[in-house]
Amino acid sequence: MSDPFAGIDLATGRASPAPPRFALNAATTKRWPMAELVEGCLAAGVTGLGLWREETTAHGVAKTADLVRGAGLSVTSLCRGGFFSAPDWYDDNRRAIDEAAELGAPVLVLVSGGLPVGPTGLPTRSSGRDVDAARSWVGEAIGRLVPHALEVGVTLAIEPLHPMFCADRCVVATLGQALDLADPYPPAAVGVVIDTYHVWWDDQVWTQIGRAGASGRIACFQLADWITPLPEGVLLGRGLPGSGCVELDRFAVAVDAAGYTGPIEVEVFHEAVWSRPGPDVLAATIAGYRASVGER
Amino acid sequence: MSDPFAGIDLATGRASPAPPRFALNAATTKRWPMAELVEGCLAAGVTGLGLWREETTAHGVAKTADLVRGAGLSVTSLCRGGFFSAPDWYDDNRRAIDEAAELGAPVLVLVSGGLPVGPTGLPTRSSGRDVDAARSWVGEAIGRLVPHALEVGVTLAIEPLHPMFCADRCVVATLGQALDLADPYPPAAVGVVIDTYHVWWDDQVWTQIGRAGASGRIACFQLADWITPLPEGVLLGRGLPGSGCVELDRFAVAVDAAGYTGPIEVEVFHEAVWSRPGPDVLAATIAGYRASVGER
Repeated sequence: MSDPFAGIDLATGRASPAPPRFALNAATTKRWPMAELVEGCLAAGVTGLGLWREETTAHGVAKTADLVRGAGLSVTSLCRGGFFSAPDWYDDNRRAIDEAAELGAPVLVLVSGGLPVGPTGLPTRSSGRDVDAARSWVGEAIGRLVPHALEVGVTLAIEPLHPMFCADRCVVATLGQALDLADPYPPAAVGVVIDTYHVWWDDQVWTQIGRAGASGRIACFQLADWITPLPEGVLLGRGLPGSGCVELDRFAVAVDAAGYTGPIEVEVFHEAVWSRPGPDVLAATIAGYRASVGER
Repeated sequence: MSDPFAGIDLATGRASPAPPRFALNAATTKRWPMAELVEGCLAAGVTGLGLWREETTAHGVAKTADLVRGAGLSVTSLCRGGFFSAPDWYDDNRRAIDEAAELGAPVLVLVSGGLPVGPTGLPTRSSGRDVDAARSWVGEAIGRLVPHALEVGVTLAIEPLHPMFCADRCVVATLGQALDLADPYPPAAVGVVIDTYHVWWDDQVWTQIGRAGASGRIACFQLADWITPLPEGVLLGRGLPGSGCVELDRFAVAVDAAGYTGPIEVEVFHEAVWSRPGPDVLAATIAGYRASVGER
């Protein structure tokens, strides 16, 4: 039932170069080694690549920057900073900002982290079940990073995650909340990520997309589809665009109408996607993108 | 990690009669046979019992009504009607309303159902990925049930479910959405359910609780706690009150302040809860309630 490739015809992904705004988020092809990934993108006419710190630091940040730049690819975003409930959050996020700058990524994606946990590893009354306080802290922590982000020219992009991640991964659960947190800071320093997987269920998202566009805060736009049933832990249950129930085209139209003209990343986490060869996954990703949002 | 009993001391649940507004939703003790369940409630000083159609029809609705009434227990709610995307939704919901009336339940809980699905069992472009349209239909369908609900004196209570259920179980994902759908109808006919498990992550829930109270629409108030990691399918992952990260006391205070003085049901679905003897689960449920919201 939960097939991240459902209804997707790979052949249409191989038929012609990727659409102009298509960008591959490398998490979708997680096990594709960096050099092959870059080659594969070139072969498929992909011009934008979203990267993750885990892989770029393993491969070497400078080496990755050289490889990607040498191939003429743009790095569309770096995932991820955030997790502001961790003790070393400040130093780690400074490093992440510097890595984004070195890679030429205009955007560092921030996943805020969940509720603070007590010694048992669970949120407790004393450690803080107060989700409002946890969200306020995220805003304050981001503020402390703003001067450095502005200095090196990287936009910190707050990503609201689906409310099912609110306790343990990201207390920022709606686009409205993300924009509230971004409000005090200049849009060059703090923006938001719109990831269809996380926000599709929200009837207020359309108004908030307009608000995000009007304030110049759409820093990153990502596509993934919602498929069920969700797997244990719910992290690796996304479908490629077109395999699920999200009105992806409606999102593309709304984000375009809000004035965003940048890359559209496809970011899918799913074991059944990761276990297939990189070139096949890329072809399926392009095919799903094309079927969902056209030749954008 | 995912322990629905975490931090709960059963002894405090056995120490004295259940607090006055405590009600057991029978889903929490799913495998406790009806007669023993009623006896167990009496022994623990429980005065209110939420029932499910599956068990009441298996035991016989009239027989259940006699048993519960004879024991002096109030039926606080009947779960559930709804699933308005099913072909037989009208007849089934009429029956559910009649069953609620026969059981003396003032409230029939409505779980709206997910997106309409195509022949593949998945939502498709043609069958409707349009979540707005699916929500509108829920409002319209409820309207068709209103005359009968008023006639027999049962309030239809729209339950917003956590957004992780939006695709396949309940397109109504926030308290605000539920209240929007209820708006056209008299509060005696259509109310809402506030279940902490589903709405705790929502920063707008406090305003919406006030709105629900002001319009006289709080028909049912349920407690369950959020624990992680979520299990596959995410349906059976709830914790007893106090075992997770939800600020249950804040909800009780807010719902009280909104003018609701009715029963507070505890409704938990978890295999580790269901596999323990009914009396132990009831004691733990009372203990968790007491530790979370006091002697209400």
